Amino acid sequence: MGITVVGSVAIDDVITPFGKNFNAPGGSATYFSLSASNFTKVKLVAVVGKDFPNKYIRLLDSKGIDTKGLEIKEGKTFRWKGRYDKTLDNPESLRTHLNLFGTFRPKLPKGYHNEKILFLANIDPDLQLDVLDKTNPKLIAADTINFWITHKRKSLLKVLKRIDILIINEYEARELTNESNIIKASKSIISMGPKVAIVKKGEDGLILVSKNGLYLLPAYPLETVLDPTGAGDTFAGGFLGYLSKVGRFNEKTFKQACLYGTIMASFTVEGYDISNLARLSKNKINQRAKQFKKICSL
Amino acid sequence: MGITVVGSVAIDDVITPFGKNFNAPGGSATYFSLSASNFTKVKLVAVVGKDFPNKYIRLLDSKGIDTKGLEIKEGKTFRWKGRYDKTLDNPESLRTHLNLFGTFRPKLPKGYHNEKILFLANIDPDLQLDVLDKTNPKLIAADTINFWITHKRKSLLKVLKRIDILIINEYEARELTNESNIIKASKSIISMGPKVAIVKKGEDGLILVSKNGLYLLPAYPLETVLDPTGAGDTFAGGFLGYLSKVGRFNEKTFKQACLYGTIMASFTVEGYDISNLARLSKNKINQRAKQFKKICSL
Repeated sequence: MGITVVGSVAIDDVITPFGKNFNAPGGSATYFSLSASNFTKVKLVAVVGKDFPNKYIRLLDSKGIDTKGLEIKEGKTFRWKGRYDKTLDNPESLRTHLNLFGTFRPKLPKGYHNEKILFLANIDPDLQLDVLDKTNPKLIAADTINFWITHKRKSLLKVLKRIDILIINEYEARELTNESNIIKASKSIISMGPKVAIVKKGEDGLILVSKNGLYLLPAYPLETVLDPTGAGDTFAGGFLGYLSKVGRFNEKTFKQACLYGTIMASFTVEGYDISNLARLSKNKINQRAKQFKKICSL
Repeated sequence: MGITVVGSVAIDDVITPFGKNFNAPGGSATYFSLSASNFTKVKLVAVVGKDFPNKYIRLLDSKGIDTKGLEIKEGKTFRWKGRYDKTLDNPESLRTHLNLFGTFRPKLPKGYHNEKILFLANIDPDLQLDVLDKTNPKLIAADTINFWITHKRKSLLKVLKRIDILIINEYEARELTNESNIIKASKSIISMGPKVAIVKKGEDGLILVSKNGLYLLPAYPLETVLDPTGAGDTFAGGFLGYLSKVGRFNEKTFKQACLYGTIMASFTVEGYDISNLARLSKNKINQRAKQFKKICSL
């Protein structure tokens, strides 16, 4: 069993209270793939320009990630510049140059259509619908952002009716549902279509809602957070990667998957960009998972 | 085994986005006692004026709370007026009339000195020291607020060296330790004296730190929060009440006590002032505790 992910591969300029990290590898599909590759086979669909450093593609390849679906076109790669204040939460976007990502039409190479799990990272909901039409996965998860919630609501609502799991953050959950109470907002997502909603609250943990009820998990306790960029996609990668590995989709595996998603995100935010994900070992993941279970157990 | 609590009994005027609740019974010792009385015997030490409605004292009595230590003096009861914004977190104090509470000198009636557990609610650290000199408990817990952290730091640091457990909120923990990272802040408290620090993050749960490590617990998920006043003291009442009931003070009972503290606080904030605590049944508490365990268990 493996995962196909459709999303962005980007170059990020990130400013935090601790310093600047410019020309860094980023994008939802990058973080997702690197995270999930610790658990399962990943097939990546995205587009970059010829300016995208080849070393990062070699890095993806070295992790066993299938990059046949990564189009390399004439033109420039998607670039994002953002700034975090000292809360290290909800960055201000200083510049967004979509470049080739603005005209991205996901092309799935042979063998990509039949993966058991599909992750639709944050892209235009119309493109998410297009990918849904072309594939036949057993489990579909998706992410979105406030921009699409506001500007492509109709298409997004169609997406929600066709997916199993929505993975978004607390700000997106409130905007999507018009509920300020985060528990009400999380529950309300289920009425829009997904069987499971996962609402991430950054350092304050997450809420998982399904028809069977609620599940709450704190975040892994970190004394140092350097760069929160990619935390959400890293979570999704760990979450779906774990589900792909165990091959069973039920309440118990969803909870365990949340734990692994949380652990993976903790590694990402402890370093800059993908640097920690690039050098992570399975041993480190398992050690932290074991420790985290103890921290959260009565 | 029982608890002696030293704190305030007050009259509150509370404004929330949902409305006004004026002339409401409040104060740290009130919330603490009502909460703890579901688990154990409580002896209350505080002062009120003759303006304090007798019906609330009768309510405390009806819960088996020993109010011999509640002085009723000529003059006016402590009054607080505060406003919560829509986040329902960290209220703005609009008016604080200490009245008789400004010259409060805790007097412990016979039988109050030898209770196994002592809770020093938010009062002047010099008064907390005075009570510590007069008592001989097995377990001492205390609370404080930013005002004392800023204006009576020296005395507060002396208190910290003599207590077992400090129970404060995230804003107080940051101010006390000068650490913005909440995990660092929580750990740092332990180096100041207490064996255990509990840092409450409102709807985002809590952090318990001891020399044995960290423990994280989410908040009970609520769809309706009407009035957060007294949540912290209600938590402390449930926490210490449970410890008093089981009579053992170790890592395992501290974790369980956090769960009961959290449950009790959830009842308080779902209603106005002490109204929910006043009519709570043991059955309701146990039902919610059981449900909450499920919500937090992998």
